[in-house]
Amino acid sequence: MIQFNTEQPVAVSLAATQEIISQIRADAMGGWFELPETYNKEELASIKSAAAKIQSDSKFLVCIGIGGSYLGHRALIEALGSLPETEAKTKILYAGNSLSPLAFDKLLKTLGDADFSINVISKSGTTTEPAVAFRFLKEKLIQKYGSDGARARIYATTDANRGALHDEALQEKYTRFVVPDNIGGRYSVFSAVGLLPLAVAGIDIDNLLAGAAAEYHDTFDHQLANAAAIKYAATRAELAASRHDVEILATFEPQLQYFEEWWKQLFGESEGKQNQGIFPASVVYTTDLHSLGQYLQEGRRNIFETMLELEQAPATDFAVPSDSQNLDGLNYLAGKNLSFINQNALDATIVAHRSGGIPVLEIKAPDLSARSLGALVYFFELSCAISAKLQGVNPFDQPGVEAYKTNMFMRLGKPGF
Amino acid sequence: MIQFNTEQPVAVSLAATQEIISQIRADAMGGWFELPETYNKEELASIKSAAAKIQSDSKFLVCIGIGGSYLGHRALIEALGSLPETEAKTKILYAGNSLSPLAFDKLLKTLGDADFSINVISKSGTTTEPAVAFRFLKEKLIQKYGSDGARARIYATTDANRGALHDEALQEKYTRFVVPDNIGGRYSVFSAVGLLPLAVAGIDIDNLLAGAAAEYHDTFDHQLANAAAIKYAATRAELAASRHDVEILATFEPQLQYFEEWWKQLFGESEGKQNQGIFPASVVYTTDLHSLGQYLQEGRRNIFETMLELEQAPATDFAVPSDSQNLDGLNYLAGKNLSFINQNALDATIVAHRSGGIPVLEIKAPDLSARSLGALVYFFELSCAISAKLQGVNPFDQPGVEAYKTNMFMRLGKPGF
Repeated sequence: MIQFNTEQPVAVSLAATQEIISQIRADAMGGWFELPETYNKEELASIKSAAAKIQSDSKFLVCIGIGGSYLGHRALIEALGSLPETEAKTKILYAGNSLSPLAFDKLLKTLGDADFSINVISKSGTTTEPAVAFRFLKEKLIQKYGSDGARARIYATTDANRGALHDEALQEKYTRFVVPDNIGGRYSVFSAVGLLPLAVAGIDIDNLLAGAAAEYHDTFDHQLANAAAIKYAATRAELAASRHDVEILATFEPQLQYFEEWWKQLFGESEGKQNQGIFPASVVYTTDLHSLGQYLQEGRRNIFETMLELEQAPATDFAVPSDSQNLDGLNYLAGKNLSFINQNALDATIVAHRSGGIPVLEIKAPDLSARSLGALVYFFELSCAISAKLQGVNPFDQPGVEAYKTNMFMRLGKPGF
Repeated sequence: MIQFNTEQPVAVSLAATQEIISQIRADAMGGWFELPETYNKEELASIKSAAAKIQSDSKFLVCIGIGGSYLGHRALIEALGSLPETEAKTKILYAGNSLSPLAFDKLLKTLGDADFSINVISKSGTTTEPAVAFRFLKEKLIQKYGSDGARARIYATTDANRGALHDEALQEKYTRFVVPDNIGGRYSVFSAVGLLPLAVAGIDIDNLLAGAAAEYHDTFDHQLANAAAIKYAATRAELAASRHDVEILATFEPQLQYFEEWWKQLFGESEGKQNQGIFPASVVYTTDLHSLGQYLQEGRRNIFETMLELEQAPATDFAVPSDSQNLDGLNYLAGKNLSFINQNALDATIVAHRSGGIPVLEIKAPDLSARSLGALVYFFELSCAISAKLQGVNPFDQPGVEAYKTNMFMRLGKPGF
């Protein structure tokens, strides 16, 4: 379903790729690999039923989570949530991803006196940012609905068997969903971590999972060396080896801005270790053609660009009006749709940047739909794991994230530090 | 007013710096250099009077502009616009920075039937994105208010003497403001380009300009070699020479996210030419500590980090509630303010990243206020111009931005291409 094109020469070693894929499949953190096929159907039904209850009694669902407990569903909600076919009455808000009092104040003002529920998403329940936010918001829920009323509005997505949030959820009888043991945060969007908020936001999670499954079959039911994810991974690894230090993911659709943020975590956290990895950056065009565009065209040549493209324009479109005076000289565009002009800007940018000496890779999804983005998420998860392995690092750990935490806990006097 | 600290060894050549500053002051595009001192007081009065009218008759002001005609005021409005002292009834919306029909559709839905005015900001009036958006929105204004009513709600910030928008504004008798000839887009926030939207958003533009003027005097009335902007520029140039290819601007205040976008344009467009320049990237912590944090800590060591810090916490704050059960183990933080925890996270991150081998630079503004951010904008404008000169490139041109445009105009059949 996902297509990959590049002018870069790329040689895929089939034997090496097959070996890597066997390793990924067998990895203790490889639970995401077959997830589009093997997800828990009973839990999916519970997710849908919880989502229906939240939609019926809440104007807002506050999703409390940070990093992988947050970026995946936010990426898809920002991309799809405002489309006519997915617009839901319940809006998703986000908390616990910051320690800024101003951010928290803004959240409280948005909530106002409206009815709301909480989905607290944390494997351990002790990560500082979400745990602090959960304390604040639980208190607000109890003030508003009483203890029993509050309990019925808290949905905990956490470890199946242990941890602070698991224990509290069991004791307080919150509705519980599971963060699987064999799936890391940044690969977790097709688990309850992502699916509950997505369902509440009105996104068709069956189509999302069907898109991921279709991409899985597109990849593994055909010639592996021709698979888009494998070619993308191989191209990245070769560019990394030839001292291309920065990859810039570019979109011409601003609704994909958070998708780029999810991508940055996926690749940055998977590859950035042992002094390895391509630094992941992102741009949203055309606005950033008038910002970082100059750098892309003529700056240091240690970067490459990956265009995230949609083959089909959105159904909503606008034709440029004609103007009898034509003072702005725009009548040559009169009657042309915005999406047509946008597509021409994209094609022109690829040619311009290649002529400036930038390797440009193209990744194409069919359209902006749950099915296409499901495929795209799976495509990136798979290519990321392969790319990290090709660069000789473990795609599934993040040992460096502890350094600032340990230091912070010492400063704050956390018991045991 | 702005402070700069680093553990990097930095040697400032006073003679070279003085020569560079003379060049900047004398440059045909150096009009921003003394702008905080020399801005047009009459125009400032007109700006305030136009802002008062817009506030009295419009729920929204739609600012049409792209790149430098947009990022500066948006950066300051996102940073300051929701503070209690600046909150205004008129909200600022942005158009003409994208060709996405979905983005335009979202704007129309937000506008709804509310009263609005337009500030169209374009030196030429023919840049595609803003010109297209202006056609659409002018048509909407005319439908809503008639031709005369529409004219009275259009504010054009454009060239003083020539260009399509200048001619239309003169003919149609729009209220006009000037994009000065000797100031480029990315250095223009203290001109009418930025000041009109800022005033409408309720930001105290006198304090903003006073902050910039204070930073000007802090820099030039004392020992030049000790000036923060000069030390920052010299440190960057040395890091660039030692193959540090990427600078990551980091903030712990999410409201500064757009300020980072403005900074990325300023430095990327000023330095990214002749195969030179440091690639500018940005992160918002603590969320991105759970995303790009792993890469910062352990990835390729060709990056450095610049912390954008505020010395004083915001007046709005929240103390962590105590919990008798303490299942989350957070009681060691009970009674502590969010801003206190945030500050400890910042201090811990600097230590952690330095121990990971990342050069960390610190830039400190006094607080989140119009005066401080005015100083910060001037600090960055000055250090950017010096830094580009130290790397041997012209800080004030952007020849590479034309490449995609020329290509696009050919594809779209624009007359003359």
